[in-house]
Amino acid sequence: LGIGDDCAVIRLPRGHEALVTTDFSLEDVHFRRSWHPADSIGHRCLARGLSDIAAMGGIPQAAFLSLALPPELPQRWITQFLRGLLRLADRYEVLLAGGDTAQSQTGILADIVVLGSVPTRKAVLRSGARHGDLIYVSGTLGSSVAALNQLRKGQKLSTRSHAKHFYPEPRIEVGRYLRQRNLASAMIDISDGLSTDLGHICEESKTGAIVYAHSLPAAGGADGLALALHGGEEYELLFTARPERRVPKEIAGVPISLIGEIAGGRQMKLAKADGKTAVLKPGGWQHFS
Amino acid sequence: LGIGDDCAVIRLPRGHEALVTTDFSLEDVHFRRSWHPADSIGHRCLARGLSDIAAMGGIPQAAFLSLALPPELPQRWITQFLRGLLRLADRYEVLLAGGDTAQSQTGILADIVVLGSVPTRKAVLRSGARHGDLIYVSGTLGSSVAALNQLRKGQKLSTRSHAKHFYPEPRIEVGRYLRQRNLASAMIDISDGLSTDLGHICEESKTGAIVYAHSLPAAGGADGLALALHGGEEYELLFTARPERRVPKEIAGVPISLIGEIAGGRQMKLAKADGKTAVLKPGGWQHFS
Repeated sequence: LGIGDDCAVIRLPRGHEALVTTDFSLEDVHFRRSWHPADSIGHRCLARGLSDIAAMGGIPQAAFLSLALPPELPQRWITQFLRGLLRLADRYEVLLAGGDTAQSQTGILADIVVLGSVPTRKAVLRSGARHGDLIYVSGTLGSSVAALNQLRKGQKLSTRSHAKHFYPEPRIEVGRYLRQRNLASAMIDISDGLSTDLGHICEESKTGAIVYAHSLPAAGGADGLALALHGGEEYELLFTARPERRVPKEIAGVPISLIGEIAGGRQMKLAKADGKTAVLKPGGWQHFS
Repeated sequence: LGIGDDCAVIRLPRGHEALVTTDFSLEDVHFRRSWHPADSIGHRCLARGLSDIAAMGGIPQAAFLSLALPPELPQRWITQFLRGLLRLADRYEVLLAGGDTAQSQTGILADIVVLGSVPTRKAVLRSGARHGDLIYVSGTLGSSVAALNQLRKGQKLSTRSHAKHFYPEPRIEVGRYLRQRNLASAMIDISDGLSTDLGHICEESKTGAIVYAHSLPAAGGADGLALALHGGEEYELLFTARPERRVPKEIAGVPISLIGEIAGGRQMKLAKADGKTAVLKPGGWQHFS
C-alpha cells in the first residue's frame, strides 16, 4: 500500500513498536567494485540493516534504498546489485517499499533503511548486561576479515567458498528466538569487531568483561585469535544471559558458543589458555579506508 | 529510547500505522552552498520529508539523517546545518533518532528519512479523487521558484523576505485537519510543481482535471501564472474534496483556495479568464541541475 504515494504505509503487528536502522554502504569504504560482485554488494548492503534488526530481537518489515550512482555505471551492475538485495529481502519477507535515486559525481553510495518491529518493551538493548552474566556469540568469527585480507593481497576468491564475506547471513531467527524466550539480557551484532562491540555492551551496561581466548569460535589460521577478536562485518550476534538461564548449543541451525562473562569494574580482559589475563582493548575496525 | 543502540525504538500511537519517506538533498541539485545558508539547507532537508508526511495526513514522529560530507567542510557549516534542521524538528516535536555519517569525495549529500504515523486505513492517498471532486491548494504558489530565479541571476536575497524559499513550512497541521475530518479524497504535496503533482493525482485516480487559471493563488509578477503552475519546492498541499463537503477558507492560519475540479477522461486542462481552455502538461520541474 502507498508505494508511489508520498510515503510508504506500513502496518506493524498489533502491540509492536517500530525499529529503525540506517546504514551507508560506500564504494571504497564498505566495498570495492573490483573485489565484490554487484549482487554481493546489494546483499551486504541490506544484510547490514537486517543484522541491526536481529540484534534487537526484531522482525524486519520493510526496507528503503537510496542510491547515488555515477552516470557511467552500467545498467547491468544496477540490475545485479538489486538482484542480490532483493534475493535477501525475499528470504526474510522484507518489502522494498521505497527510496530515492540521484547521480553521484564519484563513487556508488547506497543508504539502506530497514523498518522492523518488536513487541512493545521487548527490544533487547545493549544496556541490560549485569555482573555475572555469561557472554555468548553465534556462528564463527574471523572469516569475513580473513577473506578481506586475501582480497587486499590481490587474490581472486570464490564467492561460494567465502560466503561469510560475500553473502553474510543476518541472524534474524537467532535474535528472535532469544527475545521470545527472554534469554538475552543484552545483545549487539558484530559489525565493528568483537572487541569493539563487546565494548559497546560494557559501556552501555556499565560493566567490565572477561573473554576466554580458548572458547572463541575462531575460523582458524595463524592469526585466528586476532581476527576473531577484532575482525568486523561478521554480522554474528553477541549477547549476554543470566548464568542460571540455559542457552541452547545451537539456535536455528547456528552454533552458539559461551565465550566469557560480564565482570565488575569497567575493563575488558582476555583470559588465555595458560591462565594469564591481558587487557582487551577495542580493535577499532576501520573497514578498509 | 534506544538511541546509541543497534536500532532506534519508536512507539507509534495505538491504532496507527507507520508512514516512511526518504529524500536525498544533494549539493548543486537541491541547494548551493553559495546561495543557501547552511541552516536553510538543514531546514529544507527536513521540510521535504515532513511535507510528505503532511500529504498523507500523518503525524511526524522521528527523523533519521545520513550525511556524506567533504573532508574540507568547516565544522561551523555542519553546526549551522544541524541548527536549521533541529529548529524545524523541535517545532513539530520530531525526534532526530539516528542516522549515519561518511566522507564524500565531492559535494554534500544528505539523506533524510522521516517516520510518521496515521490512524490505520486513514492515510490520504493520491488515488482517491473522483470525477466532480473540487481541487484545492494551500497557501500561495510560485514564490519559491521566483526566489530561485533571482538567485540564478546572481542576486543576493534576504532569507527573511524570501522565507518561502529558504525556510518552507511543511503543512502538517493542514494535512492533519483534512484527514481528521475526512475532508480530502486525495492529497499530494507540491514538490515538483502543481502541473506535475496534479498529474500524479490524476494518474493514480485515473481522472482528468480542469484548473481555473484566475483562481490560482499566484504570488504575482509578470510570469506569476507560469511560476504557480510549474514551480517546484512549494511544499503546499494540493487536495481534492467531494463537491458537497464544506472546505474552510483557512486552515491552521493557512489560506485554502479552490482552484479547479476533477474531470472525466485523463487530460488536464487550464481554463482561462477569457473562457478558453488549453491542455495543461506537467511542467517537469528539474530543480536546478
